[in-house]
Amino acid sequence: MSMNRSILLRLTTGCALVWAAAPTPVLAQAGPEAVVEDFRPSSVNQPGQEYPQVNSQGYVRFRVQAPQAQSVKATLGLGGQGGTELHKAADGAWIGTTSGPLDEGFHYYHLNVDGGVFNDPGTLNFYGSIRWESGIEVPAHDADFYALKNVPHGNVQQILFPSPSTGTQRRAFVYTPPGYDAKAATRYPVLYLQHGWGEDETAWTNQGHANLIMDNLIAEKAARPFIIVMTYGMTNDIKPGAPGGLASFSVKPFETVLVHELIPYVDSHFRTLADRNHRAMAGLSMGGFETKAITTANVDKFAYVGLFSGGTFTVDDVAKTPGFRDKMKLAFVSFGGRELAGRRTAPPGIAPSDPAAEAKALKASGFNSVFYVSPNTAHEFLSWRRSLHEFAPLLFRD
Amino acid sequence: MSMNRSILLRLTTGCALVWAAAPTPVLAQAGPEAVVEDFRPSSVNQPGQEYPQVNSQGYVRFRVQAPQAQSVKATLGLGGQGGTELHKAADGAWIGTTSGPLDEGFHYYHLNVDGGVFNDPGTLNFYGSIRWESGIEVPAHDADFYALKNVPHGNVQQILFPSPSTGTQRRAFVYTPPGYDAKAATRYPVLYLQHGWGEDETAWTNQGHANLIMDNLIAEKAARPFIIVMTYGMTNDIKPGAPGGLASFSVKPFETVLVHELIPYVDSHFRTLADRNHRAMAGLSMGGFETKAITTANVDKFAYVGLFSGGTFTVDDVAKTPGFRDKMKLAFVSFGGRELAGRRTAPPGIAPSDPAAEAKALKASGFNSVFYVSPNTAHEFLSWRRSLHEFAPLLFRD
Repeated sequence: MSMNRSILLRLTTGCALVWAAAPTPVLAQAGPEAVVEDFRPSSVNQPGQEYPQVNSQGYVRFRVQAPQAQSVKATLGLGGQGGTELHKAADGAWIGTTSGPLDEGFHYYHLNVDGGVFNDPGTLNFYGSIRWESGIEVPAHDADFYALKNVPHGNVQQILFPSPSTGTQRRAFVYTPPGYDAKAATRYPVLYLQHGWGEDETAWTNQGHANLIMDNLIAEKAARPFIIVMTYGMTNDIKPGAPGGLASFSVKPFETVLVHELIPYVDSHFRTLADRNHRAMAGLSMGGFETKAITTANVDKFAYVGLFSGGTFTVDDVAKTPGFRDKMKLAFVSFGGRELAGRRTAPPGIAPSDPAAEAKALKASGFNSVFYVSPNTAHEFLSWRRSLHEFAPLLFRD
Repeated sequence: MSMNRSILLRLTTGCALVWAAAPTPVLAQAGPEAVVEDFRPSSVNQPGQEYPQVNSQGYVRFRVQAPQAQSVKATLGLGGQGGTELHKAADGAWIGTTSGPLDEGFHYYHLNVDGGVFNDPGTLNFYGSIRWESGIEVPAHDADFYALKNVPHGNVQQILFPSPSTGTQRRAFVYTPPGYDAKAATRYPVLYLQHGWGEDETAWTNQGHANLIMDNLIAEKAARPFIIVMTYGMTNDIKPGAPGGLASFSVKPFETVLVHELIPYVDSHFRTLADRNHRAMAGLSMGGFETKAITTANVDKFAYVGLFSGGTFTVDDVAKTPGFRDKMKLAFVSFGGRELAGRRTAPPGIAPSDPAAEAKALKASGFNSVFYVSPNTAHEFLSWRRSLHEFAPLLFRD
């Protein structure tokens, strides 16, 4: 498994359209690789914390102090193996290493200490699964595109906007591109960018580095400067402290907040180009499903749409949505490569689908359809960082 | 102890200058009060989390799942009692209630599970003590001044500014008042506002609600709208992951970042009034010591100064600082009432001091000295929320 993965990384580097596992019969017989002892603290550890650590192969090593505990386990591990059991070392700390390397990029996890769920005190916390989780970063070979560099930086600001439909003051984060404050006469297009189920409006900057991705693209002149707005999309159940489940999810309450409350607030408080040709929406996972529902119901409001691991646009979708074919300038669909491999060998009861073929058919019908696959990543944030990095340069290019 | 406190709250409500414990001989003999069973989830719990809870008296009840644990303890408790031991309930959860009510306001804490330090999975995390900690909020009788209300809201934005002296891109948060974006011709004064030791630039908004305090003051026309800038002040040791200790603390590296890097960046990227008469600095605890050192060394840069639980200004301080008496418009000093009680009965080796008398003497000498004591609070954030609330209306009133 572990050698398989490291080979895959080499085979598919820079090749966005290969998502099937390469056959590796010889390597599979070679036995487990040696774990290289070059572990370093994860880049998302808390200040001064030495553990957890990651090595150059992508193995993760945990070290947790709980001298009287009976068992300590980390939920990070290879698929289907139930995480990593830690073992008590001579000094009383619990230590353990994943049984193989993890995919590149960001992963959520937590600890199980004597049957209770706790975060690893070594790491920063990231909101996912309707709770603040521990996180770890396995350095990606292409991490440069979301690195913090010495380039002009845009700002990320928290806004609080009134929402009469929910009776609350709601929070959003707004990325304004470098130069926004200096260029007082310039108006900017806007991308509304949504998180996934169990996450919130902090995800796209904390886990996704959306601001750094844009800073770097703009510095390279690879994308037009635009504003990004990120708000909480789990408006299904608006009772405080009772986030909505997926099964009963209705997009309507969120559509009301986004289209009738947030967009007018942003257009009146920021220097936006407040027309449909300068407004885009994208989202990851559940945020992709929201994006599809909201953009197809509001073709007069949006001209660009992106679904990251959150559904597809078929020829039929476009045909049955009045105005979509004429007015929409782009339908961007992306997945992590490992997600698609799973789709093509769908489990019992789930119809196999082929998003690549659907995107190809849409393009063949004359619609501007773009399909992207993140190499060797699953339903995780590196897929979505890369998706934003591919999507942003295509926006507002008229 | 607990009755003592509830009486104190009544005696001193609205009376900012009473900080000594009122004598309560009769009540002290009355025995422990009954714990009122009206516990509710703390306002800083994670979404959907029922525990920890707080009752109307200020008692805190914890409930933690860790079925195989041998011991679970919360560090929150009454002074000197070593926290609260939890006990295993019939359903396997660990439960416990503080032995008395806590002071009103925000408190940091964490759990000790079988000898290891973990956060309570029920609460949000707040950066303090050089780690992300659990937090709890005991509702304050005067919480209205920092409540999220339906008033115009300013924004809090993350900026990343280049710092040649440390070789890093550094983060700051900038509060811009309501109307900042709409009033493109208006320029604003700036307050530089520092956190305490072990905290970071997130503290004043996450724990302090500085933005909401300002929104509400501005809505009431009680303070002039101004910008607040908050950055990381523990620049003593600039090696990543090795925050400086207090004993070896030198303010110089931070002074360089603040005065020579951040202030010019803010003045060139925001619509500031970029002169000393429109620039203030304040800080809490260690941030107060930094504020005193930096403002006295840069009298040409600042006109207003505030120390919240972080030192005092004496007649001698003013006399020995060239330009201070002529140029500074305000020296504001504040403490939590419980801190001062401690000061006046100083431990062996520490000279007793009387900040109130020092402030009074400074005022008598003809200098604009303002002294404030937060009733019945210790070295904690409610003292500092109230201090900002008292300080802000005094700024930039020329």
